[in-house]
Amino acid sequence: MTRIGIVGYGNLARGVECSIAQNADMDLAVVFTRRDPASLTIRTPGVPVASLDDVLSWKDKVDVLILCGGSATDLPTMTPALAKEFHVIDSFDTHANIPAHFAAVDAAAKASGHMAMISLGWDPGLFSVNRLYASAILPEGKDYTFWGKGVSQGHSDAVRRIPGVADARQYTIPVPEALERVRKGENPELTTREKHTRYCYVVAEEGADKAAIETAIKTMPNYFADYDTTVEFITAEEMKQNHSGLPHGGSVIRSGVTGWEKECHQTIEYKLTLDSNPQFTASVLVACARALNRMKDRGCTGCYTIFDIAPADLSPLGRDELLAHML
Amino acid sequence: MTRIGIVGYGNLARGVECSIAQNADMDLAVVFTRRDPASLTIRTPGVPVASLDDVLSWKDKVDVLILCGGSATDLPTMTPALAKEFHVIDSFDTHANIPAHFAAVDAAAKASGHMAMISLGWDPGLFSVNRLYASAILPEGKDYTFWGKGVSQGHSDAVRRIPGVADARQYTIPVPEALERVRKGENPELTTREKHTRYCYVVAEEGADKAAIETAIKTMPNYFADYDTTVEFITAEEMKQNHSGLPHGGSVIRSGVTGWEKECHQTIEYKLTLDSNPQFTASVLVACARALNRMKDRGCTGCYTIFDIAPADLSPLGRDELLAHML
Repeated sequence: MTRIGIVGYGNLARGVECSIAQNADMDLAVVFTRRDPASLTIRTPGVPVASLDDVLSWKDKVDVLILCGGSATDLPTMTPALAKEFHVIDSFDTHANIPAHFAAVDAAAKASGHMAMISLGWDPGLFSVNRLYASAILPEGKDYTFWGKGVSQGHSDAVRRIPGVADARQYTIPVPEALERVRKGENPELTTREKHTRYCYVVAEEGADKAAIETAIKTMPNYFADYDTTVEFITAEEMKQNHSGLPHGGSVIRSGVTGWEKECHQTIEYKLTLDSNPQFTASVLVACARALNRMKDRGCTGCYTIFDIAPADLSPLGRDELLAHML
Repeated sequence: MTRIGIVGYGNLARGVECSIAQNADMDLAVVFTRRDPASLTIRTPGVPVASLDDVLSWKDKVDVLILCGGSATDLPTMTPALAKEFHVIDSFDTHANIPAHFAAVDAAAKASGHMAMISLGWDPGLFSVNRLYASAILPEGKDYTFWGKGVSQGHSDAVRRIPGVADARQYTIPVPEALERVRKGENPELTTREKHTRYCYVVAEEGADKAAIETAIKTMPNYFADYDTTVEFITAEEMKQNHSGLPHGGSVIRSGVTGWEKECHQTIEYKLTLDSNPQFTASVLVACARALNRMKDRGCTGCYTIFDIAPADLSPLGRDELLAHML
């Protein structure tokens, strides 16, 4: 059994709790919170909630800590700090800062003889590892990543910060024609606008200037200005009824050529269709916790990513079963 | 540079030769043949063709031997025999016999301090590793593998053996409705007939009984009797013009559930669309040769499969580049 401690209890952490319940070799030992532990009720019967201040007293009772904080402010300090005391896993997803985060976590984990895995989930994570496989196999080719249809939480938050907006949900949607061209092997050059559209459902506050809100959204730099964006105003009830889930997904496509005259076209596509983005990300973290537990038992220390995990270490099945039934 | 020796010079071996030319860190050292070396002209300028009888004299000039023999009669003896003298790679694809083949190759490689990788390609190979990732991440779910649209060489050969058949090409085609139901997450139970259809293009010998040929195909046990099969007679020219390629592909789909009440449906699909089955398989072998070369330098011996390869070992990029640009 791998004994897991979860840090945090937001959407991702609750997904980790559910995933542990689906894996017979995984055991939830404790949930840590920065709030008053008495204020938190978790789903798994008999599992304690502890204060994050007391985390060190759990060192002998936890094999792997899964850190479910945010990438903007929590993980950059939390992961290196906890890697000094525990084997840790995170889902750090700010792509541009991954090298710096890796270096900080690696130094902390190596110095203390612990093992860490960072940036796990689906992007970064499964999408990344599929980009790697596909580019290694088809060295002459082009990569495309399409996201959606799905809820982008960062973009939804950005809309919610606009004055007069009571609630908002932003869906990222791949442009079907662009996807089709890539799948056909046309290797098009696509602008940001040609790859994805953005669709915003907005609940306006009473008396708010809807035209001003729409303009504020559509002209927002980085988030919306480079996209064709549609804004639709709905009621709070419609929001609750139709947009309370967090679906997401997308496709990683490598379109390449082989042959002496590069005469053959080959396409590799990896596609996710997810009802729940946080639950799926959580399921990746739990499978990786299994791998970490095995790798640290073999003496691995320092920081790793999904690129360093031999796939067999992710599976509860032994080698004989894998050879006989999965190869 | 990884110095590669190729054993054989059929479709797969010629694909390996092309793939080596696409990878700057790979070097074709020699091609071995069981025929008279003088009778063989290869594409890569300046590379010798040698008799397989002289293979031992190349021990110091080859890092990895890629064995391009057939799974029925060549590889079961060839891979263990050559694993005693070289680091070897094969594409052994008789699924039911993989455990026995693994054991034989593992014993030979371990005893002599060599490293081997077997059953590489796309099925077994990339499809297998995607089944593994997907089942580890979604432990409660169902796996589906669809093959095609593509040419099945075994089935084409079976049709060619029927009296009166001059030439034949058999395409395996997934049933679109079945694929759609799986992609929607319906988790259907599908019979063999409901998953794939078979389409045969046949060139009949002059005066042959076409009705008898069609009946012989459609009632052939194991190969066709369990499928809806269409037989179309064409001319030798049409065969040459429209069916000289070896396209293939298919999809591995995992359809699973997450959440405390299993309320969220999650689908993972890995899809290949290949103009050339042998060239793509060859490209997988060459990427794996890179991984083998690194793993043997770290002291690995014995037999491995794609399940044991950390993805980073497949890529020509170093860790810093992978972290910065691919994760």
